[in-house]
Amino acid sequence: MMYHLVSLSVSTPDKESIVEITAQVEAVIRDSGVEHGLCTVFTPHTTCGVTLNEHADPAVSRDLLYALNLIVPREGAYAHQEGNSPAHVKASLIGSSQSIPICNSRLCLGRWQGIFLCEFDGPRQRTFLVEICGER
Amino acid sequence: MMYHLVSLSVSTPDKESIVEITAQVEAVIRDSGVEHGLCTVFTPHTTCGVTLNEHADPAVSRDLLYALNLIVPREGAYAHQEGNSPAHVKASLIGSSQSIPICNSRLCLGRWQGIFLCEFDGPRQRTFLVEICGER
Amino acid sequence: MMYHLVSLSVSTPDKESIVEITAQVEAVIRDSGVEHGLCTVFTPHTTCGVTLNEHADPAVSRDLLYALNLIVPREGAYAHQEGNSPAHVKASLIGSSQSIPICNSRLCLGRWQGIFLCEFDGPRQRTFLVEICGER
Repeated sequence: MMYHLVSLSVSTPDKESIVEITAQVEAVIRDSGVEHGLCTVFTPHTTCGVTLNEHADPAVSRDLLYALNLIVPREGAYAHQEGNSPAHVKASLIGSSQSIPICNSRLCLGRWQGIFLCEFDGPRQRTFLVEICGER
Repeated sequence: MMYHLVSLSVSTPDKESIVEITAQVEAVIRDSGVEHGLCTVFTPHTTCGVTLNEHADPAVSRDLLYALNLIVPREGAYAHQEGNSPAHVKASLIGSSQSIPICNSRLCLGRWQGIFLCEFDGPRQRTFLVEICGER
Repeated sequence: MMYHLVSLSVSTPDKESIVEITAQVEAVIRDSGVEHGLCTVFTPHTTCGVTLNEHADPAVSRDLLYALNLIVPREGAYAHQEGNSPAHVKASLIGSSQSIPICNSRLCLGRWQGIFLCEFDGPRQRTFLVEICGER
């Protein structure tokens, strides 16, 4: 049984972007040698989230950003003075982490599933952590 | 310390359904013999989510589906051509996995809490994974 | 490798409140002696959630409650007779648990990140569980 924790980074190109990080997470699993266990992907930023969704058609990510802008009003009686309260709200709706089982040295992702870092207050250089807990 | 990963399936009867899977998850824990640890319930589908909520009154699940339809507009300027973008958005709002502590060979669920697979683009036969990491 | 599970409680002062619990979670990690691993914070209540967000400015939490009230209509054709369906919906949007890596005996939280219990149907005395899985 072992723990393996890696910090990685990714550039978010726009004010709001959803960037696929599946290949980076899979590389960490390969390097770790873990065969069976659990992988947790975590972002330490309060205006980012981590989600799993369809990666075959990039329109799905664009539609998620579009819908989040309909769901969380850009303007409103927000108290936080930095003007990025909608980004903080979206981060809590999406969540800071996702956990995915590992089986036979691979993530148990569905055929259409990818892992995405969601940026709601970019563009920036962003960090995410990949923690693997499992057996070699 | 051990890992135990089981793949289970469930039928979702409607276009949108919330199906309780608590008993199936509890059976996996029983079979595993794990006394203390963590249970992660994960769905590999991009138009499904996993959530915990009240299972005493089935109206709570119906109200969750009802509210998600108010929150995520069915019609809109969605780019994804398959027409199921609202289902993908709901999946990201609910999340693909939930983790629950195990204590004395039982899930540490609250008195009113059940585990649910949320289907947003059914009806279908759906898969969910139960990963247990713990000590016998 | 060890498991460590602690049940803690917190008072929620209002009908809706977001209460920071970071210090309580950090104390559990300190007491456990775990150096590397994963921490899962879980609430067994169906009208509560756990989220990570900015803790430097308390206005961010107030804005999250404000936005959730815009997102989830207070009145609607809800079927659940107890009148707290919006609270159950918010609980599922936020999620019942969050997982955070532990490194060098500390939570890998970002500079601005805190852990919060979200109450949507208070005031009450509420429970949350801190599960640590890791190596001393």
